[in-house]
Amino acid sequence: DSTLKIFTLNSNPALAEEIASHIGVEMGKSSVKRFSDGEVQINIEESIRGDDVYLIQSTSEPANEHLMELLIMIDACKRASAKTINVVIPYYGYARQDRKARSREPITAKLVANLLETAGVTRVLTFDLHASQIQGFFDIPVDQLLGSRILSSYFLEKNLEDLVIVSPDHGGVVRARRMADLMDAPIAIIDKRRPRPNEAEVMNIVGHIENKTAIIIDDIIDTAGTLQLAGDALMKHGAKEVYACATHPVLSGPAISRLEDSQIKEVVVTNTIALPEEKKIQKLVQLSVGSLMADAIIRVHEQTSVSTLF
Amino acid sequence: DSTLKIFTLNSNPALAEEIASHIGVEMGKSSVKRFSDGEVQINIEESIRGDDVYLIQSTSEPANEHLMELLIMIDACKRASAKTINVVIPYYGYARQDRKARSREPITAKLVANLLETAGVTRVLTFDLHASQIQGFFDIPVDQLLGSRILSSYFLEKNLEDLVIVSPDHGGVVRARRMADLMDAPIAIIDKRRPRPNEAEVMNIVGHIENKTAIIIDDIIDTAGTLQLAGDALMKHGAKEVYACATHPVLSGPAISRLEDSQIKEVVVTNTIALPEEKKIQKLVQLSVGSLMADAIIRVHEQTSVSTLF
Ligand SMILES: Nc1ncnc2c1ncn2[C@@H]1O[C@H](COP(=O)(O)O)[C@@H](O)[C@H]1O
Ligand SMILES: Nc1ncnc2c1ncn2[C@@H]1O[C@H](COP(=O)(O)O)[C@@H](O)[C@H]1O
Repeated sequence: DSTLKIFTLNSNPALAEEIASHIGVEMGKSSVKRFSDGEVQINIEESIRGDDVYLIQSTSEPANEHLMELLIMIDACKRASAKTINVVIPYYGYARQDRKARSREPITAKLVANLLETAGVTRVLTFDLHASQIQGFFDIPVDQLLGSRILSSYFLEKNLEDLVIVSPDHGGVVRARRMADLMDAPIAIIDKRRPRPNEAEVMNIVGHIENKTAIIIDDIIDTAGTLQLAGDALMKHGAKEVYACATHPVLSGPAISRLEDSQIKEVVVTNTIALPEEKKIQKLVQLSVGSLMADAIIRVHEQTSVSTLF
Repeated sequence: DSTLKIFTLNSNPALAEEIASHIGVEMGKSSVKRFSDGEVQINIEESIRGDDVYLIQSTSEPANEHLMELLIMIDACKRASAKTINVVIPYYGYARQDRKARSREPITAKLVANLLETAGVTRVLTFDLHASQIQGFFDIPVDQLLGSRILSSYFLEKNLEDLVIVSPDHGGVVRARRMADLMDAPIAIIDKRRPRPNEAEVMNIVGHIENKTAIIIDDIIDTAGTLQLAGDALMKHGAKEVYACATHPVLSGPAISRLEDSQIKEVVVTNTIALPEEKKIQKLVQLSVGSLMADAIIRVHEQTSVSTLF
């Protein structure tokens, strides 16, 4: 049996520590720094010959820096004769560039998959992909964990009454359905339409929300524009109160001030993306995916199925 | 005959303009921006179906951003059915990570070659590689142009007398020899030695420099530490005056203040790396590689030899 080793890069060191401590191993020793001109400087500071290496890194902002760190670390592991190189990517960046929405656009989510394989990855473990099809962009095994159980457990403990789970768009209905099943609640869908070109969008709501506690679920909160509007629409149409949750807190640009200004009572996310202090506002609750990831790593290492975990 | 199209990314737009105008073509229309979360957003704004595309991009600081822009643009060109995708990389970043100097280090220069090929490059045109062996990291044609003719022409026009061309270390002797031939001058070598561990380095000079005008030649000026010490050593050993030249002005960290403080009269570099205003100090002269690159692109496009250019 080969040894399991966990290494962190610079996106999620705290999550990596948590995973290692759940599994009961020391963090692998490595240094991931920058040369004076900003080039990535990596050195692995212990032997990994014949080992099963797990690298923890989200390709979150700054996506290009984090991705290059990961690719260079994979190269170093390969040249140091690791037996397997497993990458744990809690947040898979570039996932929204997963098809050509217009002519002559790249499909960067596929490019990233190819780059990871070229560097030498043997297996990928990820969390709530923006589109599950991205698994098929790889020719190696990809396990996807889902955030809905962690998020729904949090809300179940609150014992909220008259719940309705809301998808902020048609693309998110499957995710909302899954959460609604876990919480034994009905669903509603926000139905955005532009009546005529150049007119403002109208937000209709499909389903009953009057006097109910609405929980909006999405995968990513980026600039939080959609979420703020959805909160407004739900309150306008008679919801009693509105919560929101999402796996990945991208929170770029005006996101934090929009969340603060919004009519949403509480926003629940996970730590697939580490939050800097200035983004840790009071209405934002961050749950950890650490123990779930640790369990998944153990199952991958013991070669049992990951899919029974959620 | 297929159409030649030049596109720029964000590292060297002015050089790309100069190349296009030398060749006599309009710049290709594209937009290379960032999404709110910093991910690269690229769109090619004209048809390139069946065309020979030339992308101009140095992987200079910020190396990871510039490299990812290039890889994503290559992906977009491939999906837009370009006939050939030629990348012109005036400064090839990560070139100093070209071998394992210690155990368990990556070889990032090779990784970058693999990433470029995976993205879909069909040919590479580059300039003064830190190590010529990097050409062999690719399985596609790589043409390397050299900076020594441009640099030596500049000094020849000054009509300096009693010249000696100086290599700042043993690794640069071939480069110094080539420049010395072009200028019909002798060479000298700075011979760094550490007499005992933990003692300061001693700089000896192999060759005659007394009362001569010394021109130090290197490929990269990064933090300029070596260069400043070399200037001091040459003056101490009796040189009349010291000039320096190098192809790539990386100029990171304390480089600019070191150049200003040094005993070197003038430092001559090229525009393979674009310089921000604050680095354009008086003793720094920047020569353009634009017409040489344009000629090389024309030859590649007409399928004649590039090597006769220098
Ligand atoms: N980082 C990003 N930020 C905002 N929009 C993006 C980003 N990456 C891709 N997109 C765009 O998002 C759209 C796809 O999002 P979706 O419909 O939610 O899958 C496409 O039009 C992409 O051009
Ligand atoms: N961006 C960089 N800045 C400074 N040193 C580097 C950089 N990349 C690689 N190196 C180191 O430079 C050495 C190789 O430089 P050289 O001997 O000039 O080829 C190796 O020890 C590398 O670890």
